[in-house]
Amino acid sequence: MGLVNLLFGRPLASSEDQGQRITPTQGVPTFGLDALSSAAYGPEAALTILLFLGLAGVRYVVPLTGAVIILLLIVYFSYRQTIAAYPSGGGSYTVAKENLGPGAGLLAAAALMIDYLLNVAVGISAGIGALVSAVPSLQKHTLLLCLVVLAILSIVNLRGVREAGSAFLAPTYLFVGTLGVVILIGLFRVIMTGGHPHALVPPPPPPAATEAVGLWLLLRAFASGCTALTGVEAVSNGVQAFREPVIPAAHKTLSTIVLILTGLLAGIAALVYYYGIAATDPGQPGYQSVLSMVTAAVAGKGVLYGLTMFSVLLVLCLSANTSFADFPRLCRAVAIDNYLPHSLTARGRRLVYSQGIWVLTILAAILLIVFGGVTDRLIPLFAVGAFLAFTLSQAGMVAHWWRNHGSAHHILINGIGAVATGITVLVIASAKFTEGAWVVVLLIPAVILLMTRVHRHYELVAREIEAKGRPIPRSNLPPIVIVPIESWNAVTEKTLRFAMTLSGEVQGVHIACDEDDSITAEWQSVVAGPAQEAGFPVPRLITLHSPYRMVLQPVVDYVLKVEKENRHRVVAVAIATMMERHWYHYFLHNQRGEALTAMLLLRGDRRINIINVPWYLLA
Amino acid sequence: MGLVNLLFGRPLASSEDQGQRITPTQGVPTFGLDALSSAAYGPEAALTILLFLGLAGVRYVVPLTGAVIILLLIVYFSYRQTIAAYPSGGGSYTVAKENLGPGAGLLAAAALMIDYLLNVAVGISAGIGALVSAVPSLQKHTLLLCLVVLAILSIVNLRGVREAGSAFLAPTYLFVGTLGVVILIGLFRVIMTGGHPHALVPPPPPPAATEAVGLWLLLRAFASGCTALTGVEAVSNGVQAFREPVIPAAHKTLSTIVLILTGLLAGIAALVYYYGIAATDPGQPGYQSVLSMVTAAVAGKGVLYGLTMFSVLLVLCLSANTSFADFPRLCRAVAIDNYLPHSLTARGRRLVYSQGIWVLTILAAILLIVFGGVTDRLIPLFAVGAFLAFTLSQAGMVAHWWRNHGSAHHILINGIGAVATGITVLVIASAKFTEGAWVVVLLIPAVILLMTRVHRHYELVAREIEAKGRPIPRSNLPPIVIVPIESWNAVTEKTLRFAMTLSGEVQGVHIACDEDDSITAEWQSVVAGPAQEAGFPVPRLITLHSPYRMVLQPVVDYVLKVEKENRHRVVAVAIATMMERHWYHYFLHNQRGEALTAMLLLRGDRRINIINVPWYLLA
Repeated sequence: MGLVNLLFGRPLASSEDQGQRITPTQGVPTFGLDALSSAAYGPEAALTILLFLGLAGVRYVVPLTGAVIILLLIVYFSYRQTIAAYPSGGGSYTVAKENLGPGAGLLAAAALMIDYLLNVAVGISAGIGALVSAVPSLQKHTLLLCLVVLAILSIVNLRGVREAGSAFLAPTYLFVGTLGVVILIGLFRVIMTGGHPHALVPPPPPPAATEAVGLWLLLRAFASGCTALTGVEAVSNGVQAFREPVIPAAHKTLSTIVLILTGLLAGIAALVYYYGIAATDPGQPGYQSVLSMVTAAVAGKGVLYGLTMFSVLLVLCLSANTSFADFPRLCRAVAIDNYLPHSLTARGRRLVYSQGIWVLTILAAILLIVFGGVTDRLIPLFAVGAFLAFTLSQAGMVAHWWRNHGSAHHILINGIGAVATGITVLVIASAKFTEGAWVVVLLIPAVILLMTRVHRHYELVAREIEAKGRPIPRSNLPPIVIVPIESWNAVTEKTLRFAMTLSGEVQGVHIACDEDDSITAEWQSVVAGPAQEAGFPVPRLITLHSPYRMVLQPVVDYVLKVEKENRHRVVAVAIATMMERHWYHYFLHNQRGEALTAMLLLRGDRRINIINVPWYLLA
Repeated sequence: MGLVNLLFGRPLASSEDQGQRITPTQGVPTFGLDALSSAAYGPEAALTILLFLGLAGVRYVVPLTGAVIILLLIVYFSYRQTIAAYPSGGGSYTVAKENLGPGAGLLAAAALMIDYLLNVAVGISAGIGALVSAVPSLQKHTLLLCLVVLAILSIVNLRGVREAGSAFLAPTYLFVGTLGVVILIGLFRVIMTGGHPHALVPPPPPPAATEAVGLWLLLRAFASGCTALTGVEAVSNGVQAFREPVIPAAHKTLSTIVLILTGLLAGIAALVYYYGIAATDPGQPGYQSVLSMVTAAVAGKGVLYGLTMFSVLLVLCLSANTSFADFPRLCRAVAIDNYLPHSLTARGRRLVYSQGIWVLTILAAILLIVFGGVTDRLIPLFAVGAFLAFTLSQAGMVAHWWRNHGSAHHILINGIGAVATGITVLVIASAKFTEGAWVVVLLIPAVILLMTRVHRHYELVAREIEAKGRPIPRSNLPPIVIVPIESWNAVTEKTLRFAMTLSGEVQGVHIACDEDDSITAEWQSVVAGPAQEAGFPVPRLITLHSPYRMVLQPVVDYVLKVEKENRHRVVAVAIATMMERHWYHYFLHNQRGEALTAMLLLRGDRRINIINVPWYLLA
């Protein structure tokens, strides 16, 4: 247990729950890393689409970012309301299920699960991608590095939600701090130069325009920019992770995240506009990220540049943490409703839903391994799930206010949110359909199907094992106890002795492979004779010949025969089980006790029970 | 079972044993392939050493082969006597053990086991080596081809000893036939030309001499030539595989093998001498095997040449069959004496000792894989084991005759055998020590150590589980039955109902992870209340709180506590076990029944028994 304690921390009692809850300060890294890190790739994604417009594209950055920020604020106000209405954790699943029905709930759940999983793989691989492009000698270790980051994230999260919040506090605020300083310096220069700042490191000139401005292109740029919003729903899912009173704490966390994100998005957009920075083609050799160009233009390639770039790649790696905080909670909510395995509802030693963390880790590791740690091709799949969940959650809230006679103000906010995110889903899905979003469109129904099958099974089982409530003590006959005997020894004697305390009807079954293999003499002198003398019921010895030298099959057949012949009786098979002291003694003893137990359980019936009488070898 | 029957044949009843036994005709391929195939490499091995003498070396072929044949005949007569004296299977192990003591027996067994294992790897790899040097495009599949041959040999042998004898009949007689024809033609030409035959394909000229003739070189050549004798002991080990009367059948088989081998060795030596054929260096490009040169010189490179070469490589591949016939018998003899796992003594579905075949297959596969199918480096290890076993077996026979007042004639034959093979062991071991024979010298004590450890364990166990013979029926109290209850349902009710038929003392143990988790009401209405009314002993409900949410550990602790507090009672834990109908439902139900069983068996004690009450899910 030493290593386990060191790695995962000492077990926490259920009563320590309150002490494990987090403050808003810890809430920002816990739930906000996904949203905040998107400041690093949201503007970049939009600008990459605008690349086709050449220099003219840069002009559209400001209105596009404005639209994204407006959508962000709509979503923000909607989720504030959701948090207040569902203080016990109003994830999209819960809200959609309770207000729009189980189908909508499952749709939201499936969409979010896929989104969270992709977030882990893409976030880690983006961070490591930035690292290896800065230090090319690490290129060949890409996958290993990705898996190391995944392992760190998963261990920290298995240590508990508070540990994760504390551990990732520093990188989060380093990221916000350095980027904030860059933006402030930049804006100061913009103002001082009357809107014509001089770039310390001039960005590469924008390419020639290859497309004219059109609605479709702008919509696609908008859809790409919207990836900046993923992760905003995270807080509403994890309200119960906060210290009491939970609602103000959750509100404060969400407000902080959205405020910072808005500031970063607006600041970056302004600098891009005034410094005239166009994206570079990610597939081409001269590629440089937008944030790198902005920082270099404002601050040159000095210490601040290095620190900012380092914090960006750190935060990209850690953006997966939001998934680790929310995915297990989502799975738990779904599993409580019997749509996923019940083990996902159990809290582990550190009061987190450990099973969900393991599942997420394993699935993400598989994704990373399959894609060799380079998940660029997964990026288009992203955001569809998140926005689908947004839409269902907002629509659910509209229904919620309607049913509970909420104010028109409430309905309006959530309604605008639903419409805006709904349109965004359509734009994203159609803009990115051929690039890979179709995979998500196929995956979601598959996940829903799986969940409904799980649900059906649990319902059938629940009906099957429903308590009958009939009084148990009745004058039931004791079972017929069958004792398979391989050879006569102290183990046999012990097993028989125990069997005879359980029932007056004991049968010894001996399998004889050879003609002269018999234990009749021992049986008579040790069992049957003394029983007769003492006036006890006399146990029977059955000897079965096995011409094909099978030892277990005849026993199983005999037990089934006895069970069939005694329709109103219960049968118990008492099996002597040798327990070796050392694992390397395994090959020295036949494992017939275990094998017979397994065969009887597999081929057996409800009226056959199995008694293991262990013999602990001293040798 | 369809595939299993197709692959391994229908199960054979023990009573079918006689029908499965073999005739001398089948005995030659079964036990003789190792010995006969050595006609292909024994002379070659000797000639390769004589290479250093240049043309002069060829002159020494005849006296050297003569010496080898004399040794062969000594060994032959010795083993004839052994067969007659030990008709139940007088392998070197048995003879050495019974006459020289267990230590000598184990030494012989260890040496032979290593020899048999090497024979499989080296034989297959030599055959496939000949194949790929004839068809170079197969070179890259060397390992795969080796493993395929190994699989075929192991399947055929698992089908029974008679099947193996019949299957390998044709290749054996093809080999003897083609090589016999070549020798006869060659000798005819030698006689017709007055000792100066004309080679149809002249052999390459011998290289210049690099060493002078010396005793050490001749001894080394003799030691190499002696590899032709390995496998001669095989028949004596497997006397019981023959039809009754076994002794004449075994004698006839051994005589046939030795007669053929003598003829082949003498014939090849004569042709080598008269055609003036020197070996070519196996490491060099122009390498050609001695048999290939002899055949080409006598018969040209026509159909007969192709057929002969084909039969040689076939027989090399199949020479491993001798090991498959003998290794399992040897292991069985050793296991009966408790020096190896008892499972090696069990006869499988086809009346062969299947476990030994599996062990040999797995070990040989590992050797082949480790060496990539090219086992040249293992060849020097070879023959040490075989000759060591020869020597011990002969020496054992001397002691046998001495003790049983055998005739001087008997003692003399076995005595000469012992001395001759003993000297050969020393020559081989010292000549090949640095080439790798030291590995065998280290391996043999390691194997012996392992066998004595196994023996010690079995002795301790036998003493431990020795039957006490005390009368079993006594007025023992029934056990205290503990029923762990996770939640109240029909499964719980069934388990409790069964427990209450076994004993008046039943305790329900409920683990409560939450404050409000209680089953007191159900217990009172379904169990305790009705029991009180009916005047039955009232079972107790124990509720244990688990602040750390562990479910199984508190149950185990409680059971151990009850066991400790009731020194003279036996405890039984009745565990409800959910049996899923489909494997893919595994994740949907906790496996706590199985886990608790395992934990109790591992941490439990002699007075704790485990009762599995299975519930077969219909869903």
